[in-house]
This record gives sequence, C-alpha cells and structure tokens, in this order.
Amino acid sequence: MLPFERVTILGTGLIGSSLARAIRNRMPTVRLTGYDRDAAVAARADELGLFDDMADSAGASVCDADLVVFAVPVRAIGAAAEEIAADLPRDAVVSDVGSVKASVLKAMAAAIEGPDRIVPAHPVAGTERSGPDAGFAELFENRWCILTPGAEADARNVERVSEFWRRLGSEVELMEAGHHDMVLAITSHLPHLIAYTIVGTASDIEDVTSSEVIKYSAGGFRDFTRIAASDPTMWRDVFLENKEAVLSTLQRFTEDLTQLQRAIRWDDGDFLFDRFRETRDTRRRVIDAGQDTAAPDFGRDRR
Amino acid sequence: MLPFERVTILGTGLIGSSLARAIRNRMPTVRLTGYDRDAAVAARADELGLFDDMADSAGASVCDADLVVFAVPVRAIGAAAEEIAADLPRDAVVSDVGSVKASVLKAMAAAIEGPDRIVPAHPVAGTERSGPDAGFAELFENRWCILTPGAEADARNVERVSEFWRRLGSEVELMEAGHHDMVLAITSHLPHLIAYTIVGTASDIEDVTSSEVIKYSAGGFRDFTRIAASDPTMWRDVFLENKEAVLSTLQRFTEDLTQLQRAIRWDDGDFLFDRFRETRDTRRRVIDAGQDTAAPDFGRDRR
Ligand SMILES: NC(=O)c1ccc[n+]([C@@H]2O[C@H](COP(=O)([O-])OP(=O)(O)OC[C@H]3O[C@@H](n4cnc5c(N)ncnc54)[C@H](OP(=O)(O)O)[C@@H]3O)[C@@H](O)[C@H]2O)c1
Ligand SMILES: NC(=O)c1ccc[n+]([C@@H]2O[C@H](COP(=O)([O-])OP(=O)(O)OC[C@H]3O[C@@H](n4cnc5c(N)ncnc54)[C@H](OP(=O)(O)O)[C@@H]3O)[C@@H](O)[C@H]2O)c1
Repeated sequence: MLPFERVTILGTGLIGSSLARAIRNRMPTVRLTGYDRDAAVAARADELGLFDDMADSAGASVCDADLVVFAVPVRAIGAAAEEIAADLPRDAVVSDVGSVKASVLKAMAAAIEGPDRIVPAHPVAGTERSGPDAGFAELFENRWCILTPGAEADARNVERVSEFWRRLGSEVELMEAGHHDMVLAITSHLPHLIAYTIVGTASDIEDVTSSEVIKYSAGGFRDFTRIAASDPTMWRDVFLENKEAVLSTLQRFTEDLTQLQRAIRWDDGDFLFDRFRETRDTRRRVIDAGQDTAAPDFGRDRR
Repeated sequence: MLPFERVTILGTGLIGSSLARAIRNRMPTVRLTGYDRDAAVAARADELGLFDDMADSAGASVCDADLVVFAVPVRAIGAAAEEIAADLPRDAVVSDVGSVKASVLKAMAAAIEGPDRIVPAHPVAGTERSGPDAGFAELFENRWCILTPGAEADARNVERVSEFWRRLGSEVELMEAGHHDMVLAITSHLPHLIAYTIVGTASDIEDVTSSEVIKYSAGGFRDFTRIAASDPTMWRDVFLENKEAVLSTLQRFTEDLTQLQRAIRWDDGDFLFDRFRETRDTRRRVIDAGQDTAAPDFGRDRR
C-alpha cells in the first residue's frame, strides 16, 4: 500500500520538480498536484508535464491532498503554510524539504492546526542549480533524508513520511530539529558560506585580474565556484534561519584558521603536516560511506 | 623536431609519473630516465614501465639528459638541484613542476651554473592523489602550464620548454615568478588552506559526531574533503614557500568573511543576497573558459 495517494508540492523548482519526477518513477499511481507562485516557473513545470495538475492558487492545490510538501525557500514556508491552512483537508499530512528545521517546524506549527500531522523533512541532496529544468528523478537515491518531527507528531504519520522517502530511494533518519541544524551547519551551511566568501575575495584582489582567477581556477578554486553558484535566495534564507548554529560553527572555524595562519607565519612545518595528514582520513571515510566517489575529481575532464 | 630527446624526471610521484606517461604518448621517441629517492616509489615506477631507465642515483639520472625536470615537493627542489649539479651536462635545460615559483627559481639558480638554461614551469593541473599509480597521461591536456623564467634565461630555452608543454597538450603562459605566486595564492593555495581548516574543524565539534559529519557530507562538505585529501608534504611546502602571498590573501579572505558574519548576525538579508548573486557569474565564466564542466556535480553519482 502506498503511504500517500494524492501529493501536492508547493514550489516546483529544483527540489520540488525532482520530487515530482521521483514520485512519477517510483509511485506512478500517485496523483500529483503542483503550485508555484512564480507564474513562469509554474508554466514551465506544466510544459514539462511534471504534475497531473498545476493549480492556480495555493489553496486550490491542497484541497484534495493527503500529503502536502513545501519545497520553497525556508523563509517562505511560514507564509505558504498560512496560505493553505484554510483549505487543508483535516487528515492531510504536512511536510517540507527545507534545509533548516527548527524555525521551519515552528513556522508550520504556528500556521497549521493539528501538530500531530506535521512531519518536517530534509533530503540531504541537491545541486548548485535551481528551477524546474534543473531537477532529476534520481536526486534522492542513496541519499539521506532527515525527518525532524516535534514531540506532538503522530508516530503513524512519521512512519508514512519515512516510507514515502524510502520509496524514493532515500535512507531515512530521525533527528531532533535543533540537532539537525547543528549538524547541517557544519556539513553544509559553513562550506557554502566559505565558498561564497572565497569566490568574492578572489574578485577583489587588486594584483590579480579576474581573468587570471578564471584561467587558473583548476588548481582548486573552481570547486568553490561550483558551490558558490548555488541559489542566492535559498542560501540567504538558510543563513538567517540557522543563524546561531552557523555563527558558532564559524567561530570555531576562524579559531582553527588562525592557528594554521600562525603556523605558516612561524614556519611550523610539523604542525601543518600533522593537521594535513589527519584530514586525509576523513576523505577515506566519506568514500567508504558511499557519500562520494573515489575517482580523482580534480582531473575531472580527463579525456 | 622534438624540443628535447633525453628527458630525466626526478621524483616519480603523481606529477612525475603523469609527465612520463604523457611524454610516452605524445613524444614516443624521447628517451626517458627516472629517479626517486624513495626506493619503494622508484621500484613501483620501474614495475609500471614508465621509464626507459630508472637510475640508482640522482647524479647518474642526469648525466646524459638534455632536459631535467624536478617533480619533487617544492622545499626539496634546492637539495635535488645540488645533488645533480656536478653531473649535469653543460647544455642541459633545467626545469621543474613546483606549485610555487619565486623561491624555487632562486633555489635552482643557487645550485646550478648557467642561469640561461633554467626555465621553471608549473602545470596547473593535479589531483588529490599522490604516488606513481595515481598519475595518468591526460592530466595536462587543455590545462595551463605557466613558465616563470628569470631575466637571464635564454629565449631559445624558454621556447623549447614551451614547445615541450604544448606537445603534451597544455597551453603555455609566461609570467613573472612573484606574480605567479600571487595568482596561485588565491586560485589554489588559499582554497586548499580553507579546505584543510574546515575538515579539521568538523572533526572537533563536540555536539556533532564524526559519523554524522561523514553521513551528511553530501550537502557540501564532501567537496572540501576531496581537496583536503591532498598530499600533506606537498602542501606544507607550498604554504611555507609562498608564505607572504598566502598570508596576505588570507587576510583579505578573513575581512570578507567577517563582513558576511556581521550581515548574518544583523539579519542583513539584502547584503547576503547581493553577495551570493555576484558569485554565480564567476562560475559561469569558469565554465565558459573550459576550466570545469557544467554538469551539476553535487548530484555526481546520479545513476
Ligand atoms: N538546492 C538544494 O541543493 C537543496 C537541497 C535540499 C533542500 N533544499 C531546500 O529545498 C527548498 C527549495 O529549494 P530549491 O533549490 O528547489 O529552490 P528553487 O529551485 O529556487 O525553487 C523554489 C520555488 O518556490 C517558489 N516559491 C517561493 N515562495 C513560494 C510560495 N509561497 N508558494 C509557492 N511557491 C513559492 C519560488 O518562486 P519565486 O522565484 O517567486 O520565489 C521558486 O520557483 C528550500 O527550502 C531549500 O532549502 C534545497
Ligand atoms: N599534486 C598536484 O596536484 C600538483 C599539481 C601541480 C604541481 N605539483 C607540484 O609537483 C611536485 C610533485 O608533486 P606530486 O604531487 O607529484 O608529489 P608526490 O606524488 O608525493 O611525489 C613526489 C616524489 O618525489 C620524491 N622526492 C622527494 N625529494 C626527492 C629528491 N630530492 N630526489 C628525488 N625524489 C624526491 C618523493 O619521495 P619521498 O616520499 O621520499 O619524499 C616522492 O616519491 C610538487 O612540487 C608539487 O608542488 C603538484
């Protein structure tokens, strides 16, 4: 039996459209309804045939749903929840895919009656693209999906949402929302902040032209440009909604960077060597855990 | 006519072995001699059949060469140059592949007679691996190779080394050594320092277990682990030999990071949005310049 039969996705960008495609492939009998407040995005999702119906309003999109998923930037989830609250069927389960969880859980709970049916989710999978054309069905396969239900969530609803993600190929993990935000601050939010910073810094160095930066980017910089090409709205929202965890992680990073800086200044080669050797082990573990491939990616357009 | 006919490579690790493979493919009549001070590495290079001869000593490796290339960590180049100085044929050209150029040029010039024949080179291509098994023939194709000859270098020797790299598939650029070090500080050295730092920080956060860091690394962190898996000896040497440029670039980075940190703390979403939007453009230019592929790499094991 399918965990849900009539799924509505609000926001049909990268994640919303990938979700629609994945549901189509894995649970073809599910009736899919989509809505996007950006008319051009909605039209494109329609053209791509991602949904059975594209609704004209948020309210209309949910009135028949048994699962509603918000796939909009995290700061927009509260408003989107308010928009649908009046039209939401009494027994529909409500979820999302936002990259921050504590504030989003709070925003959904404030707008929607029935805390037993709110089951926030975060698929830890994505790309640096946005919009409906960027999505693809396999995005969630072999990736983790973290659920962060509050204390009042009904265990049956949590199990249904878990089963939903497992059917899409993900491994599901339950976590307290605040802990999720701390974990993601270090594994995702800080890396993005650092990448945005370094790409900005490189554009502002007066002795080096920007065309030199581009030309010689294969030495490491290009990897940061990929991460820093991620959606500005999404990331602005992530940093503002996960402010405390991001700032405290950043503080630790700065301390560690200062220590390496000192070691360089004072020629402490042994300290540098030891630190650099430890990080190799982390890489091996990422590969062993199936979270990356071992192919040497620096030579990525190896022909 | 080939630019060189008898090439000796000292250091048969990632870059030295890639160079040997590339020469074999592109200039098959060149006689190749290798030497590595690490007996296990030398034996492995021999087993792989990368060279016509593996020499037993540095001096013996160069006595018949018309080109000698140091492919050892940058702090080892001075000592390696001293080791071969006495046996070097009078007309042999001397080059290297080191990631830092001003100090290496100085070290080679101090050890070797005849500044007209010293033509330092840096192929801006690499991977996070090391050792002779990690090398591959295509590493230098469509990559830049920067030559940083001093004022006394003979133009004919510079042209021969240029032609050598063009034959291996690289595009060649001439640059003043100090300027090279400034450009690479931002495009390669700072990114590596930052990646090493963040991977270290992640291992030390007390509220997040290291297995959580590994599990959820697909959100951005895994890219940093790849860069931070690079060879510790090589990178220790790079930071110590390019100290000034690295520290001044790092200072700029820290200022920019502090500004973003302030914007997060004070909820300045517009500032964040504007900064994040600018960096997208840099990504587009990296792709247009052929320095990376446009495939959305976050979803890299898309099946
Ligand atoms: N990208 C990733 O790698 C990734 C990974 C995991 C989770 N996530 C999370 O997934 C969510 C969506 O991200 P995305 O990358 O898919 O973004 P996206 O491609 O930019 O798509 C978001 C879409 O939602 C629309 N929208 C905004 N507010 C809305 C509302 N109130 N009602 C209906 N539609 C609305 C946007 O329209 P406008 O243009 O008008 O705003 C846009 O078309 C975010 O919460 C993000 O944190 C992203
Ligand atoms: N890796 C990259 O991405 C990259 C890219 C561009 C340029 N480079 C530059 O290329 C050079 C080599 O790097 P790599 O990645 O190929 O390093 P690697 O794989 O670690 O190989 C270096 C080899 O040189 C040997 N060696 C050290 N000192 C020597 C000496 N005096 N005489 C002979 N052999 C000696 C080492 O042996 P021991 O183990 O005994 O030290 C090791 O086997 C470095 O200068 C680096 O900056 C690297």
